Order: sequence, then structure tokens, then C-alpha cells
Amino acid sequence: MRTIEWRDGVVLTINQLKLPHETEILELRTCGDVAEAIKTMKIRGAPVIGVAAAYALALTAHHSKAKNREELLMELERAAEILRATRPTAVNLFWAIERVLGKAKKMHDDVRELASAIISEAITLAEEDVAANRKIGMHGATMMEDGDTVLTHCNAGALATVDYGTALGVIRAAVEQGKRVRVIATETRPKLQGARLTTYELKRDGIPVTLIADTMVGYVMYRRMVDKVIVGADRIVNDAVINKIGTYQIAVLAKIHEIPFYVAAPKSTFDINRTSAEVVIEERSPEEVTCIGRERIAPEGVDVFNPAFDITPLEYVTAIICEDGILYKEDIDKIKRKH
Amino acid sequence: MRTIEWRDGVVLTINQLKLPHETEILELRTCGDVAEAIKTMKIRGAPVIGVAAAYALALTAHHSKAKNREELLMELERAAEILRATRPTAVNLFWAIERVLGKAKKMHDDVRELASAIISEAITLAEEDVAANRKIGMHGATMMEDGDTVLTHCNAGALATVDYGTALGVIRAAVEQGKRVRVIATETRPKLQGARLTTYELKRDGIPVTLIADTMVGYVMYRRMVDKVIVGADRIVNDAVINKIGTYQIAVLAKIHEIPFYVAAPKSTFDINRTSAEVVIEERSPEEVTCIGRERIAPEGVDVFNPAFDITPLEYVTAIICEDGILYKEDIDKIKRKH
Repeated sequence: MRTIEWRDGVVLTINQLKLPHETEILELRTCGDVAEAIKTMKIRGAPVIGVAAAYALALTAHHSKAKNREELLMELERAAEILRATRPTAVNLFWAIERVLGKAKKMHDDVRELASAIISEAITLAEEDVAANRKIGMHGATMMEDGDTVLTHCNAGALATVDYGTALGVIRAAVEQGKRVRVIATETRPKLQGARLTTYELKRDGIPVTLIADTMVGYVMYRRMVDKVIVGADRIVNDAVINKIGTYQIAVLAKIHEIPFYVAAPKSTFDINRTSAEVVIEERSPEEVTCIGRERIAPEGVDVFNPAFDITPLEYVTAIICEDGILYKEDIDKIKRKH
Repeated sequence: MRTIEWRDGVVLTINQLKLPHETEILELRTCGDVAEAIKTMKIRGAPVIGVAAAYALALTAHHSKAKNREELLMELERAAEILRATRPTAVNLFWAIERVLGKAKKMHDDVRELASAIISEAITLAEEDVAANRKIGMHGATMMEDGDTVLTHCNAGALATVDYGTALGVIRAAVEQGKRVRVIATETRPKLQGARLTTYELKRDGIPVTLIADTMVGYVMYRRMVDKVIVGADRIVNDAVINKIGTYQIAVLAKIHEIPFYVAAPKSTFDINRTSAEVVIEERSPEEVTCIGRERIAPEGVDVFNPAFDITPLEYVTAIICEDGILYKEDIDKIKRKH
């Protein structure tokens, strides 16, 4: 199945906290269910968070007892508020909410037609995500060479999107073209998306993958074991890429070792009118660092700093791969000027 | 108690695998016991590994039934072989073995006197470690300023030595001088010595410490939260410092952010006639990466690369702090020429 699916008033999604050991399918029936799943990272990955928010509005519309257009719009606004409060950093969440709400506000049909238009918009948004990933894969694959070893961080795969993935979509597309590509996956502390999700996805697809701890990135580059780096993004602003904590240091190390550093992300991740200074970097609970499952790995009461994302200035990014093609720094500057 | 102690034919040491949750004192009675404790990292940290090896030879001498000097020397050689096979990278192990064996070979006393001289040499070596650390602390403290936040990696503390520590010894000495120093400790995957041991030691001493995941080093430097970096060393060769995996990337990040990067280590860690290319970088079992205690964090059968150390070229090292003082690159070059 896809990472998230709409089934007639129920949203089905894989509980990503239980992978790779257990494939638990969650049935989300309300906006609150979806918001809780995003907050606790049962749903994670910028693109799929956006789609989940759209589906949450679709659930609100589907189950609404609103008697008229205005009542439904108010319900949707309340739902949007709950969703916006889940996670502050990835922009796809806000983008998807605005897109579905914007569509709703522009329509002047009766309440039933409005509800069904909202559901249909959410489904369209999910389909577009898959299509965008396929295009990202197609463009990105041209950058991959036969025999490449590609290092990736966190999970920018099928599980971070509706299907196929962004960074891993590029690797999948290269493999589909017959290129032999090996992957080095960083485990990605604290939430271990690399160890748990990226290795799981790639093994399932038969793409060779080697897991390393986050401490080993410098050394594998020093040993010349890495030809390229490719990661996803949670938000692309006009001076930086904001992505999973640990991305910035990998980008610095790639530059020092003269290894190309690519970011693969759909345009829904772009927030080009903002600078990195304006973005809230989410800080999450200390327990994510001090506990791994049932194991406590640090003394009780120790102080912890746990930012979930970091900021990679564009000077460290070789190119951004989006559904429209490959964007270099000059192209980003052009997009900036247009806005 | 000290990290390791000789008590009349028994070596007492803290099982570092059980910290910070449990302080288990191991009683080691044979060379084999010590070798097993080193291999499994119940004893870890280059300086204390050296002392443990010396004590293992002392145990061999103490319990020996050798009838003459030659028999005892043969027993000691066999014990040394077992010890040399435990871990290949830290040089203190080999240095301590050679020192105790060298002492034994030079003596021509009877077997009882020889045995007691060996025990006494091992005890001296342990005392010298504490004295060296105090001197390292004294020299290093001059580099620390009131109000500094110092990032450290792994555990180069009292637990990595007989007592006081190298990198943490510098911090302790600065605090003893009345300087306010805060520490950021990286958790140090895969074995989590930072999360488990460094935070434990510093909290016990009342030195403020904040734990971060290894992915967060770049971001805390980007945010200008770090004034200095100080780490220990497993071996210092003529072109590089070899230390816990993850050290190299921290050194690169420190350089990019113009943060001084110090290495604190006793001269027993120096192996100045060798280059980094000659050093075996130990690779340890995949389970260290895929399992944390009872928690499995990656799919079964995933490929893993698990080097325990990495290589930091001297160009990334601001200075090396040893018991003789502060050594800059020029000083290392001078030592090189002398050899």
C-alpha cells in the first residue's frame, strides 16, 4: 500500500514508529487522529505530512454535519488550527492546508458539493505528490552514475511521501534505468529514521544499503567511500535548506571532501519568500535523546538539547532537484527575484 | 574508587557497560579476565586500557608458579600475546605491555623478586597516569576561559583513565581554578560513552553538562553555542590524531566555524614514528550499531560498517595538551625530527 491512503471517510497510514519490526496500519477517522499521528511522528516526512493535513481536512468535510457553506468553512478553519499546531518546521503542512482551504473558500456551491470538492482536492494533492516524486526521480537520476555510492540521511523515501520518495526516488529511478547504485544510510539519531526506515525500504527493493552511525559520516568520506550525497528537505527558504538535524554537518563534510550534495524535494517544500532566520526550528522532548525504546541511555535528569532540524546555507548545496528539473544556486536566485 | 585498582592479586574495575545505571565492581583475577574485559569494553579508554594491560601482567606474575626467571618471562610473553590481540588501535595497550616486559627482561633477580618488581612497575604506571592527567589538566586549564562552553566527544574522563581524566581533566582543572565552564557532550554512537559516561561523571562533579545526539554538532556550532572543543586520543601519530569515531567530523566542523580544537592525551598515547596509514582502525560487530541494549533498531540482516575510530589530520588540531605542556603543530614536527 501507499504510505497514506483515503478510503471512503477513513485515512489509512502505516505507523512509522513501529517499523521495521511491525507493519501496523492505523485507521484515522478524525482531524484529531491525524494531528496526533503527526505530532507523535507516526506520520513523518514533510511531503506526507502535507498530504495527511489535506486528508485531515477531507475527514472534517466528510464527517461534517454543517448545514451550510459557512458552517463547514468554520469547521475547516478550526481543523486547520489544530493541524498547524502539530509541527512548526516543515512547510508542506502549511502549504497543503492553505491549498485545500483556499479551494474551499473560492467555491460557492452547497455544503455537500463543497465537502466533496475538498475530499477530491486532498486526493488530487496526494496524486500530485506521487507524480512529483516520479519527476524528481527522472531528473535526479541523470545526476547519478553507474557504480555510485550515495550517502543519504534520515528517510526521504516512499515512507516520507505518498509513494516512491524524493531522495530515495532519485536512487530508485537511477536503479530502474539500470545504473548500479549503492547506498550508505546514516542511522539519524535521535529518531533513527535512517536505521529503521531507509534500510527497510531499500532492502525491500533489493537496493544495496549499508547502515552507519551518524559519527561515521566524516570517516566514510575521508576513506573516499562516498560519491554523492542526496537528502530531502522540510523547507527550502531563500538562503538555506532546512532539513532533519544532521543534514548541515553532512553538507559541510561533503563540501570539504568535494562530494556533490543534492537536495531532492517537491515545490511544495519551497518557501522562497522567507529566510532561514524566520523559520521556527522545532525542539522536541529530551526523552527522544535519553531513551531508545525501553532503553534509557543517559543518567536521569540530564540536560538535553534536541532540535529536530538544522539549517544548511545554499552555498553547501550543489543543486536542488524538484519536479521541474535541476535548480542551481543561480536558479534559486532567479526564483527569489520573481517573488 | 579509581577506575582500576590493584588489591593484592586482584584487579578491581568498574564495569563501564553497566554505567550510568549500575556501579558494578568487577574482580579480575587472571590475564584472561582482563583481556575479556578490554575486548568487550567493560574497560575502555586508551589510558586505562594501558594500565589494565600492565595489571594483567602483574596478575600473571602474582599467580605464577614459575620456578625460575625464564619460565616467568615465557608466561609473561604468552600473557602479552593475549593482551595485544584484544584491541588494535589504541597504542597505550602496546606501550604499557612493552614497558612492563622491558623492565622484566632487564632484571636478573630471582623469580620472586622479578614478580614483585613487575607488580610494582604496573602500580607505578597507574600512579603516573593520574599524575600525567593532573599535569594535562593544569596545562589545559590555561586554555579555558571563564564562561566557556566546551564540546567534548566520547568519554576522555576519569573513567577512561585511572582517575581525573584527560579532556575532562582539563575541564575539571579549569573548574577547580574557579572558571565557569559548561560542557556539551555528544552521545557518541554506537557505544554511547558520551551519553552514559561523560554526563554521569560531570553531573556527579556538579559541572553543567548538556547532552546532544551526534547529528547536532554542526547545528550547535552554527548557532555559536560552542567556544572550544576538547577530546582525548587513542593514538597520536606523526600526521594525525586517532580517536573515537566521530572525532574527525567534529574537528572539520570546528575548523569551519573557527572554534579551537584541542586534544588532551598523555605521552603514552604518542606513536610519533608511525603515520596514520600504518594504524589498524578496528572494526567492531554490526550489533553495536543495530542494537541498543534490548532494542533492535534496524531490520535483520542489514549490512553495517562499524569502524571504532577515525583519523583527524593534524591540520585540524589547534594544539595537543600533554603532561609536558601545550604542543602545536611545529612542536609535533620537532618531535618528529628528533626520532
